[in-house]
Amino acid sequence: MFKDCIENVRRKQPLIHNITNYVTVNDVANVILACGASPIMSDEIEDVKDLISICNGLNINIGTLNKNTIEAMFLAGKKANELGHKVLLDPVGAGASRLRTTTSIQLIEEIKFDVIKGNISEIKTLALGNGSTKGVDADVTDSVTEESLDHTIIFLKEYAKRVNSIIAVTGAIDIITDGYQSYVIRNGRTEMGKITGTGCQLSGMMTAFMAANQDNVLEAIAAATCTMGLAGEIGWRNMQATDGNATYRTRIIDAIYRMDGDTLERGAKYEIR
Amino acid sequence: MFKDCIENVRRKQPLIHNITNYVTVNDVANVILACGASPIMSDEIEDVKDLISICNGLNINIGTLNKNTIEAMFLAGKKANELGHKVLLDPVGAGASRLRTTTSIQLIEEIKFDVIKGNISEIKTLALGNGSTKGVDADVTDSVTEESLDHTIIFLKEYAKRVNSIIAVTGAIDIITDGYQSYVIRNGRTEMGKITGTGCQLSGMMTAFMAANQDNVLEAIAAATCTMGLAGEIGWRNMQATDGNATYRTRIIDAIYRMDGDTLERGAKYEIR
Amino acid sequence: MFKDCIENVRRKQPLIHNITNYVTVNDVANVILACGASPIMSDEIEDVKDLISICNGLNINIGTLNKNTIEAMFLAGKKANELGHKVLLDPVGAGASRLRTTTSIQLIEEIKFDVIKGNISEIKTLALGNGSTKGVDADVTDSVTEESLDHTIIFLKEYAKRVNSIIAVTGAIDIITDGYQSYVIRNGRTEMGKITGTGCQLSGMMTAFMAANQDNVLEAIAAATCTMGLAGEIGWRNMQATDGNATYRTRIIDAIYRMDGDTLERGAKYEIR
Repeated sequence: MFKDCIENVRRKQPLIHNITNYVTVNDVANVILACGASPIMSDEIEDVKDLISICNGLNINIGTLNKNTIEAMFLAGKKANELGHKVLLDPVGAGASRLRTTTSIQLIEEIKFDVIKGNISEIKTLALGNGSTKGVDADVTDSVTEESLDHTIIFLKEYAKRVNSIIAVTGAIDIITDGYQSYVIRNGRTEMGKITGTGCQLSGMMTAFMAANQDNVLEAIAAATCTMGLAGEIGWRNMQATDGNATYRTRIIDAIYRMDGDTLERGAKYEIR
Repeated sequence: MFKDCIENVRRKQPLIHNITNYVTVNDVANVILACGASPIMSDEIEDVKDLISICNGLNINIGTLNKNTIEAMFLAGKKANELGHKVLLDPVGAGASRLRTTTSIQLIEEIKFDVIKGNISEIKTLALGNGSTKGVDADVTDSVTEESLDHTIIFLKEYAKRVNSIIAVTGAIDIITDGYQSYVIRNGRTEMGKITGTGCQLSGMMTAFMAANQDNVLEAIAAATCTMGLAGEIGWRNMQATDGNATYRTRIIDAIYRMDGDTLERGAKYEIR
Repeated sequence: MFKDCIENVRRKQPLIHNITNYVTVNDVANVILACGASPIMSDEIEDVKDLISICNGLNINIGTLNKNTIEAMFLAGKKANELGHKVLLDPVGAGASRLRTTTSIQLIEEIKFDVIKGNISEIKTLALGNGSTKGVDADVTDSVTEESLDHTIIFLKEYAKRVNSIIAVTGAIDIITDGYQSYVIRNGRTEMGKITGTGCQLSGMMTAFMAANQDNVLEAIAAATCTMGLAGEIGWRNMQATDGNATYRTRIIDAIYRMDGDTLERGAKYEIR
């Protein structure tokens, strides 16, 4: 149950190591705290080697990758694999530059990711070897609609099996699949796209959820996704007439902070296929 | 009309590449989203080469420059020039260190900037080759007052002609000039100086405005400046008794998010000289 | 008096140079502004050399240290010592990785710090040469309680004398000592630990307070600590039913912005031992 997933995060308070971008890093840290876990950020190779062993999960986000941090990503990912720690990849902007595409593909080749999470353009890029990501947003021609849903699920299941990872595609409709079972999630609001970093925040929270629910990762990832979307719905209801995207950002993190298991169970909108 | 300038941003949703500092980067991203454009941040040379071609404008801000990012600034700027993309320079802290001063001057020598935007101390430093910037704030002895206004406009027009760029000087009174026509703007509040990064935010927004109004850059830059100042006025009106600079920061971004063309037209306080 | 300490910051507006982490840097800048000082952030060696001479205090925080920034920390610290500027060290995560531990210890060996400020696990690590920091949080087995207070004060006084620095340990009970006199502070709320960076914010504010109260550093550091804790109490009182850690973060900075000398005097909860 999703209720158990979030309560396990709050009870176990896993320590999450993040190699992430400097744009949204503060919000990622606050979201990890809001859901009950504890964040640490480090991208220096010498530092990463030791930190990875005291952490319970690793979140790799290539949003502002550079030569040094790429090296740290490979090292941290491999070390996490050795230690049996859960690892997530958020290939931000894969398809928008060759560096982002090739780095993501190489990371997936050399590291076993428990979860690869992106928008549909990023995931298509990785699965097909090329793509048309519009900066850090999905291309509209790629977007998942009710019409393209069945087809997209088949495509993602095939890719999940091929790379032996859970694939999480976020958008108006979210799809989470391990290649066999798929969660289709309809929480959230389009206005969340007007805040920088809700995707990065979700990646941090997913890592916390799977670190606290290691025997139940697929459900944990779905629970994290519903938590984020539902927080977007609750946060929106708390908006005043003069509020905009900056207040909305705060409201969403607040809603995660106050989310309890029962609220999540009642508010989660998903089907399993 | 300013109304058209902001509506063009919301309609065209230009993608803005930012090589900016890690202090205010999150707010810059949220402001670019608030005004209707889309941000991407990258300062890794390998990455920048590709991204620049899918973007519609480039914002270079030297707030936390380092050897690697300086190299990326030169590369990105030259590539943007080749592609005919609009480029803005925010020489944060020019005058406060030799590295900042010389980097800014070399950037201006090697790259054609559509806009150079700074406080009066930074711009004086660049025009005169030396200056007395107090950290990242203008020196009080430099500040633009009603008394020094005429003289300052003449000085800035001369510099604008010399470097063939629009010069935007922000402060209690803002001056935007292409060397021929000058906008003198009196929107804003002094309390905005108690928030880190309102200047950086404006640079991001200016880049979005000119990317969406390429035939009309001078007016677009003035419109962006009025939008920021007016948002500062509206945000202040929405403050409660216990609010301080942190809430004010949120209120300003919210006001940009809600700004429409008519509100901007009615609230803009400017004269053309 | 604490009242004088904060009023001196607002009156003198010292310029504070920060070599700090990219996670919490924006909040550090806004807190430095909120208390009346002015921040500048730079970690590039070429830049640091010049900036340090125009600043009134230096805040070194190793939260996301890397090879380049470590070099800048040594250079800036030594230069600040030469110039007689006040310098603070926040050894974030010392004990969690060898790089953090050895860097902190070497910094303390080569630079005279006016203040070393951390949680009890970090400070124990530095004093004893090893430790058990849980990521960036103190280990529960280390925590300062009423029972362990006397013993901890003795331990910290000894370490303060040994390194000739004021030692500031923050937690449920804060202890500030120069080896002779000790402030024991009981302001603050546990919920502050659910926001990333309140510790980093306090380090920035401490540096501002000591730069503006150079003849009275011990009291200034205690005053900054009470200001932070009291802001946490005031911010909490301003929370609404739907607010969480993101709003709380904003409320605390707001409360610092609005803090006046009399409020601080009345609200400060401390004893001198």
